[in-house]
Amino acid sequence: MQIAVLLYDRFTALDAIGPYETLSRLDGAETVFVAERPGPVRTDNGAAVLVAGKGLDEVTRPDIVIVPGGPHPEIEMKNPAVLDWLRAVDATTTWTTSVCTGSLLLAAAGLLDGRRATSHWLYLDHLAPFGAEPTGERVVFDGKYVTAAGVSSGLDMGLGLLGRIAGDQYAQTVQLMCEYDPQPPYDAGSPAKAPAEIVARLRAVNPLTERDAS
Amino acid sequence: MQIAVLLYDRFTALDAIGPYETLSRLDGAETVFVAERPGPVRTDNGAAVLVAGKGLDEVTRPDIVIVPGGPHPEIEMKNPAVLDWLRAVDATTTWTTSVCTGSLLLAAAGLLDGRRATSHWLYLDHLAPFGAEPTGERVVFDGKYVTAAGVSSGLDMGLGLLGRIAGDQYAQTVQLMCEYDPQPPYDAGSPAKAPAEIVARLRAVNPLTERDAS
Repeated sequence: MQIAVLLYDRFTALDAIGPYETLSRLDGAETVFVAERPGPVRTDNGAAVLVAGKGLDEVTRPDIVIVPGGPHPEIEMKNPAVLDWLRAVDATTTWTTSVCTGSLLLAAAGLLDGRRATSHWLYLDHLAPFGAEPTGERVVFDGKYVTAAGVSSGLDMGLGLLGRIAGDQYAQTVQLMCEYDPQPPYDAGSPAKAPAEIVARLRAVNPLTERDAS
Repeated sequence: MQIAVLLYDRFTALDAIGPYETLSRLDGAETVFVAERPGPVRTDNGAAVLVAGKGLDEVTRPDIVIVPGGPHPEIEMKNPAVLDWLRAVDATTTWTTSVCTGSLLLAAAGLLDGRRATSHWLYLDHLAPFGAEPTGERVVFDGKYVTAAGVSSGLDMGLGLLGRIAGDQYAQTVQLMCEYDPQPPYDAGSPAKAPAEIVARLRAVNPLTERDAS
């Protein structure tokens, strides 16, 4: 089984590493990091750099595709090389997945038309124009399409998917090895839970909202 | 403020990326990935590769040090280049931190003597020979030393530390941007919660236990 993690300039590191850390523990899985061109790819803040071992043309039949998000999805949403690749590999994947605004790339490729899907809470409204039905759930399974909410949600998605592929006990084993027993020191991880003034401030600076308003 | 994330061969990706994803959002922070030699560094399963932008000799006065773990801590625990660097930078850090078996590197460098500390649950017993007092807590603050349990616990550590440095509201803002509202599909993330047979099986294959028994 081949798992392909898509990288592109200014992706968010945890979006990719969260599901990677769980799914790559599948017995017999080969995980490849793939980008338009092989080589180093910078994350959103430029500090972390991951290496894409392969170019898009070298990964043609992955079983699982993981598409991370980033704060500027509008760039890759107009990149024909990435959208064409997503459409091409989706024809034979077992699972096509995304974290955060990665779902907007899947949507822009036409893959979420008529599907329930999620995204980072700030970008959820951008799914509907592509025919997707946005939901506020953290992880959404619709057929072979699995979308997860913002950044850290890829951990929950990875474990959920692992359970469907390899069984509950396998997923629990990986959860225990990753000691995923979350104890966040605050309870501000969703717009429904965070202080209202923080939610409002973040909504005011969302780049896609700004662009739409201009 | 400079944040240095130590990389070394066969580190675990999420150990490094979890706290990076939250702490690197500090206003004015410069985050550097540092290794014995600059360049690509492979993770534990070889699939993910992160780039160390700087060598140890180029990072001499970081404010925060983050030491990730990996499944073979015994290798770096005997690496004088890494241990000497940890001791040298610790002299001027504001916070010296670790995730997972990263605490065993801090312990081997002599930095946790007389301190309360944690580690991956499978490796907790290896702290005491270095004078540290192991606790089963997920994140342990003892003075400027902050140690976190296995792999995913670095997310909780990062947010907790962010709160201490920049205030609760700042940390909550980052938590909301990362949408860290965990909903693991299983409740098997600690040895107290996971099915007993899974705990026993993992204890039986723990490489450090094997080594000790041989």
